[in-house]
Amino acid sequence: MDTVHLSRFIQNFNIFALATLSLLFFFGLSGFKEIKAQAAPDENPNIVLIFMDDLGYGDLGSTGAIDYQTPNLDKMASEGMRFTNFYTVSPICSASRAALLTGTYPNRIGITGALFPDSQIGLNPEEQTIAELLKQQEYATGMVGKWHLGDARKFLPLQHGFDEYFGLPYSNDMWPVNYDGTPATDTTSFHAKMPPLPLIEGNEHVEYIRDQQDQDQLTTRYTQRAVDFIERQQQPFFLYFAHTMPHVPLGVSQKFRGKSDQGLYGDMMMEIDWSVGQVLQALNEKGVADNTLVIFTSDNGPWLNFGDHAGSAGGLREGKQTTWEGGVRVPAILLWPDVIPSGSINNKMAATIDLLPTFASITGAALPENKIDGVDIFHLLQGDNHSQPREHLVFYYNQNDLEAVLKGKWKLVFPHHWRTYEDEPPGENGLSGDRHLVSTEIALYNLRRDPGERYNVFEQNPEVVEELMKLAEEAREDLGDDLSDRKGMNKREPGKL
Amino acid sequence: MDTVHLSRFIQNFNIFALATLSLLFFFGLSGFKEIKAQAAPDENPNIVLIFMDDLGYGDLGSTGAIDYQTPNLDKMASEGMRFTNFYTVSPICSASRAALLTGTYPNRIGITGALFPDSQIGLNPEEQTIAELLKQQEYATGMVGKWHLGDARKFLPLQHGFDEYFGLPYSNDMWPVNYDGTPATDTTSFHAKMPPLPLIEGNEHVEYIRDQQDQDQLTTRYTQRAVDFIERQQQPFFLYFAHTMPHVPLGVSQKFRGKSDQGLYGDMMMEIDWSVGQVLQALNEKGVADNTLVIFTSDNGPWLNFGDHAGSAGGLREGKQTTWEGGVRVPAILLWPDVIPSGSINNKMAATIDLLPTFASITGAALPENKIDGVDIFHLLQGDNHSQPREHLVFYYNQNDLEAVLKGKWKLVFPHHWRTYEDEPPGENGLSGDRHLVSTEIALYNLRRDPGERYNVFEQNPEVVEELMKLAEEAREDLGDDLSDRKGMNKREPGKL
Repeated sequence: MDTVHLSRFIQNFNIFALATLSLLFFFGLSGFKEIKAQAAPDENPNIVLIFMDDLGYGDLGSTGAIDYQTPNLDKMASEGMRFTNFYTVSPICSASRAALLTGTYPNRIGITGALFPDSQIGLNPEEQTIAELLKQQEYATGMVGKWHLGDARKFLPLQHGFDEYFGLPYSNDMWPVNYDGTPATDTTSFHAKMPPLPLIEGNEHVEYIRDQQDQDQLTTRYTQRAVDFIERQQQPFFLYFAHTMPHVPLGVSQKFRGKSDQGLYGDMMMEIDWSVGQVLQALNEKGVADNTLVIFTSDNGPWLNFGDHAGSAGGLREGKQTTWEGGVRVPAILLWPDVIPSGSINNKMAATIDLLPTFASITGAALPENKIDGVDIFHLLQGDNHSQPREHLVFYYNQNDLEAVLKGKWKLVFPHHWRTYEDEPPGENGLSGDRHLVSTEIALYNLRRDPGERYNVFEQNPEVVEELMKLAEEAREDLGDDLSDRKGMNKREPGKL
Repeated sequence: MDTVHLSRFIQNFNIFALATLSLLFFFGLSGFKEIKAQAAPDENPNIVLIFMDDLGYGDLGSTGAIDYQTPNLDKMASEGMRFTNFYTVSPICSASRAALLTGTYPNRIGITGALFPDSQIGLNPEEQTIAELLKQQEYATGMVGKWHLGDARKFLPLQHGFDEYFGLPYSNDMWPVNYDGTPATDTTSFHAKMPPLPLIEGNEHVEYIRDQQDQDQLTTRYTQRAVDFIERQQQPFFLYFAHTMPHVPLGVSQKFRGKSDQGLYGDMMMEIDWSVGQVLQALNEKGVADNTLVIFTSDNGPWLNFGDHAGSAGGLREGKQTTWEGGVRVPAILLWPDVIPSGSINNKMAATIDLLPTFASITGAALPENKIDGVDIFHLLQGDNHSQPREHLVFYYNQNDLEAVLKGKWKLVFPHHWRTYEDEPPGENGLSGDRHLVSTEIALYNLRRDPGERYNVFEQNPEVVEELMKLAEEAREDLGDDLSDRKGMNKREPGKL
């Protein structure tokens, strides 16, 4: 019997539990550290936010992965809540992370694509992050992993509310090594322009990731650091654990190489699952699991052109760098034994930007003064399946025009171009396959019937189209159609060097 | 605290449990009938097989349903095992059911399509069903719901190993009522040719389903009968509970009408979920839940041309009456607290035909003397995630040629025609939309990357094609390419009047 169910048991049968505890005392039994007092309802929970890089909707056991297993994540889902309609608001790294940490659509705050080493912009220090919000509630705040919101000192995590930081400042392929593992010598290539890839402790470059062996150790080292952070804290604490994996180049430690039936990608996923297990075990051993909210989700869909080194969108259309479902719908598993009903599924639409206001609601923190776009979904976590705090979402990619509006089961897609891997052989062994540019006419999809976005039902549903057109027009007024026209009235500047 | 976890608890902490029971006795507390002895390991489990009609892969909370919830099924999954690659071997009613009950590919035993009232063939009495197999192990055997393997007396459940039977002999739209609910008067129509739809008790027509109100009561009445069967039995028992829903015309009792946000289909699914809850509760109240294997699955994918009255294949391609994934991949949830690890996902390929040999393995029953096609997956239920008892599956539809071979992540599809709803407005309010005939060239799909079967990768994978071609040729030799050529050497005759 695990802690979760034992604590429920005690909650439900107080007399029984009291009697049992007396009896245990009487018999002098030991080894029952699972039995502990429930956290007082007014005690703020610890929060652990595990954020993956390019993990696809279909990459977990619970969402249909094949040829490898994710038992720790499956168990986490069975003891917690899985959201089946959970979204990132941008299908690209930096924009997605800016949104996550600020609860705000990315182009409202000027981070719309992927930042590069020595970028001249970063997350504006004026924006309030989850870490800063929780600091006000006396949380200890730590971050492990990939930041990607500006690598200049003024943009790094310690300047955004984190007490400590250990990880990579940006993507692990932004280094002077080609995708085939050879040193990048062609000076015209993307990789040759990259500086050495630093590993940062606090604000300092303490090491460099120089080769595949270094990449292979990242998940292990991140995990050790995450567990160490948990062990050192006094409640309450916030840990933002942003894995570098499954972003290419894939890294896997020796203990997981060859363990799956799906090559390096499967091995890597098994190591990620192990890592989640290590975090949950650390929370259990510390005795804080019941009142810790653990969230597992991803920044965007799979980077499909990397073929066998990319994840799966599980039947959703396309992947990363597109606003089709495969790019923006992500797995989301939430565990919080004191609050979240075990084994529950929530099918209400929710998004990464909703986490900040939800954490505010849970902890009593004040919302940022700047306008945010997230909504409070605390009720959903408590098992409310009827209310629908979020009515719709809008999707932009990079500096493109508004690409899509999603409300309930309806998704209206505006004409736009995107890079597809269709009809191109996908890459193998870490190399990228080709992509080409394609475009769509305006289209409406019924995601109940057609989550794969195959069948355009625009003509048959004029009233739905009209309703979503109105939401799109509001979004354009509010957020603009791109960054260059600055039409949107409520946009803010990114941080600048 | 539910029975499952309490029993685990007792298993793990025997002294604790004994002490607790003494204490309960001392205090004279009552209402703890959840506390009971574990079933002896050598005691055969009860088996409850819940079989849906046209339920799609995406119709459950755990597989992405929206606008309604299935909390009992979600809970069942979180306490049991969910298979993510579970298949029916035929995308049509009678063939699928013949396969389920005999563990045999449908065209090996001559039931390849949907039978109609007064059909001249039925499931051959020479074939051994799950019920007959379990009878040999002294199971009580009951069936509630839709049979569809011949409605003449010689084909009915009592002649196939069931002690008792209550339900419809075939589909609920095989009645003299049009899909719009009006009496069928056009004598050239399908419905006008139908006799009154009987409700059967044992071998007798005891009532007729005459109107929508009668259809609305089916789920309630079936459920009452299923619960009644459970309550009356001495262990061990086998209950085959074959719902008529979600087959059109949809029926929903008053207590669920208007309860979902997805119209009649959502209401109906909520009633089905309620029904599953009633069955699980009956098992709990009887004190046999821990050693009962409950299985929930479906006969084939959703009947998509019925639009808002059809389910969802959850992003898989097409639905019922096709061998695309949407027609043959079905949800499968298995609960057996004494054996199945709670909250586990199994992603190995398995199929409805594997249940018969698995039940034989579990109960020690002898396999049928006739050749069967199912394999024993008992190890998978016990939590083994490494072995792969089933290497491949072949798919036929009706009397067509072999349409597809599936091995691991690879699916080879042969040229064939099928009816699609694509580019046709789907039906509404119980009426069918149009369909039209389309065809495919030979194609290979990588279901890890592309479970939606969009991207033909035949040209890029000649070795895979060669391997699957060989399996196809073996299937053609063994099972034939259709019923008319009788090329397959190992086929048997259906039962005949």
